[in-house]
Amino acid sequence: MKRLTTLAAAALCLLSASAQQALWGGPQVVSPVINDDNTVTFTLNAPQANEVKVAGDCIDGYFADMVKDDKGMWQYTTKVLTPELYSYSFYVDGVKVNDPANVHLLRDTASFSNIFIIDGGYADLFKVNDVPHGTVSKVWYDSPSLELKRRMTVYTPAGYEDNPKQRYPVFYLLHGMGGDENAWAELGRATQILDNLIAQGKAEPMIVVMTNGNAALEAAPGEGSNGLKPVVSRPAKTMEGSFEASFPEVVNYIDKHYRTKADKKHRAIAGLSMGGFHSLHISKQYPDLFDYVGLFSAAIFPMEGATSPVYQDLEGKLKTQFDKKPALYWIAIGNEDFLYKTNEEYRKLLDEKGYKYTYRESPQGHIWKNWRIYLSEFAPMLFK
Amino acid sequence: MKRLTTLAAAALCLLSASAQQALWGGPQVVSPVINDDNTVTFTLNAPQANEVKVAGDCIDGYFADMVKDDKGMWQYTTKVLTPELYSYSFYVDGVKVNDPANVHLLRDTASFSNIFIIDGGYADLFKVNDVPHGTVSKVWYDSPSLELKRRMTVYTPAGYEDNPKQRYPVFYLLHGMGGDENAWAELGRATQILDNLIAQGKAEPMIVVMTNGNAALEAAPGEGSNGLKPVVSRPAKTMEGSFEASFPEVVNYIDKHYRTKADKKHRAIAGLSMGGFHSLHISKQYPDLFDYVGLFSAAIFPMEGATSPVYQDLEGKLKTQFDKKPALYWIAIGNEDFLYKTNEEYRKLLDEKGYKYTYRESPQGHIWKNWRIYLSEFAPMLFK
Repeated sequence: MKRLTTLAAAALCLLSASAQQALWGGPQVVSPVINDDNTVTFTLNAPQANEVKVAGDCIDGYFADMVKDDKGMWQYTTKVLTPELYSYSFYVDGVKVNDPANVHLLRDTASFSNIFIIDGGYADLFKVNDVPHGTVSKVWYDSPSLELKRRMTVYTPAGYEDNPKQRYPVFYLLHGMGGDENAWAELGRATQILDNLIAQGKAEPMIVVMTNGNAALEAAPGEGSNGLKPVVSRPAKTMEGSFEASFPEVVNYIDKHYRTKADKKHRAIAGLSMGGFHSLHISKQYPDLFDYVGLFSAAIFPMEGATSPVYQDLEGKLKTQFDKKPALYWIAIGNEDFLYKTNEEYRKLLDEKGYKYTYRESPQGHIWKNWRIYLSEFAPMLFK
Repeated sequence: MKRLTTLAAAALCLLSASAQQALWGGPQVVSPVINDDNTVTFTLNAPQANEVKVAGDCIDGYFADMVKDDKGMWQYTTKVLTPELYSYSFYVDGVKVNDPANVHLLRDTASFSNIFIIDGGYADLFKVNDVPHGTVSKVWYDSPSLELKRRMTVYTPAGYEDNPKQRYPVFYLLHGMGGDENAWAELGRATQILDNLIAQGKAEPMIVVMTNGNAALEAAPGEGSNGLKPVVSRPAKTMEGSFEASFPEVVNYIDKHYRTKADKKHRAIAGLSMGGFHSLHISKQYPDLFDYVGLFSAAIFPMEGATSPVYQDLEGKLKTQFDKKPALYWIAIGNEDFLYKTNEEYRKLLDEKGYKYTYRESPQGHIWKNWRIYLSEFAPMLFK
């Protein structure tokens, strides 16, 4: 063996700790840097660029010019930031660029941004903390009515695998237009929020099911058998009733394959924007399925021309649903949301009929920041 | 209700099909376009840029200059490409940029590239086809010896959930230096390859377990409780024996929580580069665990100074392992791989001792293209 050692060492030094550092981009640029005062400094090495901007929800006015030093390094430091998950991108000579020094990237619909977290407050719920973690699975179910096998994300809480006799309540959590079965688990930090709330004893251990609400699709981009085709050819079948009508197929799959408490008392449904619309219409179409309903910045009324039976007799179906007194009917919206007025009209309708609901108004508009907060507030109210 | 209709329609047209198109970037740029002759055209809208290149394994010489038209649209068309999964990026005035028109992005270590597939041949195994799909789960197991809870990817084959009495063999599939528990499932297309091989009857239905081979880490970037910290501070504990020594903790977790055939005959282990090194040393350290061993472009010999007991008495342990006659000991490497000579030395050692193995030599070097092919060839030989 001795004669091999030198040769082996020569080959393997390529795989040593310093090589590993090189694989990870080396120490030359660290970005973003969260400074002690919670300002954040972005840095990009771009000596050939004429103009570099940084854009994101951490910047006043969304865009800011970065400043170049004599080595071609561009920098920008934000104002002091409050605790939150922020996203940002660079624009190099007009083209959107992800920060090459930041491996943390999230997809929103069809574009990617880098993210970072300022610790503290509710932002700590969005972090992976040293707590027991649930299992997150990509699962395919059969939808005969949509004539597709379809992908969904299923979160089972920590302990699910180790307690084979325990049964769990189920929370169905639906994304908005342009989202998919990955949206809540990634952008929405739903798995971190649930891990943390459950670990703190603030939420019941529950299964969370995140479906794909575009009835024309099997799955998120690249995960369905339309393969890696350009997204402009992506078909859409949304808010025309078929996803809502098909929803018992999801519930049946989950009740058959997971250890659920398979009754209305132990089922919740909520969603953001289009997912709020879905939650509204599914829960009234199937008034014996869900005892907890959450509308987060929800679209409310069907689109003009939508003819699905799901949308017929809204008032009659609401009467049936509210006569059965849902355990929680929770409406949340930001006061700058473009759906604010529609929600106001809907609340008026519920008020006129004397239907009981809980209303939560937040600042700002139709943004993930609000939806993560709504989820953090809604989940603790379930199944209690 | 009538009075609400117009208001609702006004708000909701923002969510209509055309709005959905806008969410997806609109039809203005389609990139990449796979032309009928299997050339591929890339397009980037960058009127302010001075220089745009495209780089990737689909380009002869890796880099090519793109050409600007009078509207600021840059284009490049490749030569005719053979079937394969390719990756590429743009460089805009020297800065790496992902194609904003292509939502399909993969992370390799700390950087992202866009991908596309040219159909045909073995590349069809890398596609999501209209076949039954397995479930892909992110699961946390406890490693007392590494003093961490650790994340892994577990693939259960289609039918696993619907056949609660069936037990399955298990294939442990390990990544290389700089990779993590996501690498094989994403870059390696392991879940697509397994779905397709199983659907074609070419591979046995099996559970595939993809661990994280960096013993200092809980999980892939952003998924562990080091949070979203810059990757330059990422700790490394690799090829020093502790991951290999701890491996029975993984096997025990899987045998306890999944319906496995829990014996040597029904266990395989393979990996690429550092993962091949791990497979070699784990399988000889625990000679009663794995009947199938695959070394894909493997590192072979411990690094100078590595003192773990795992690496002691290599020859004695190999003798024990090979005396038990593994069902398959498969060594694959590209003839341009920087580890080629080390593998040659290792094969010489095995030859001198008369230990039986199968050798597969491919063209090219230390690249994912080879590792996807090796997996496609190795999986069908298992458990038969």
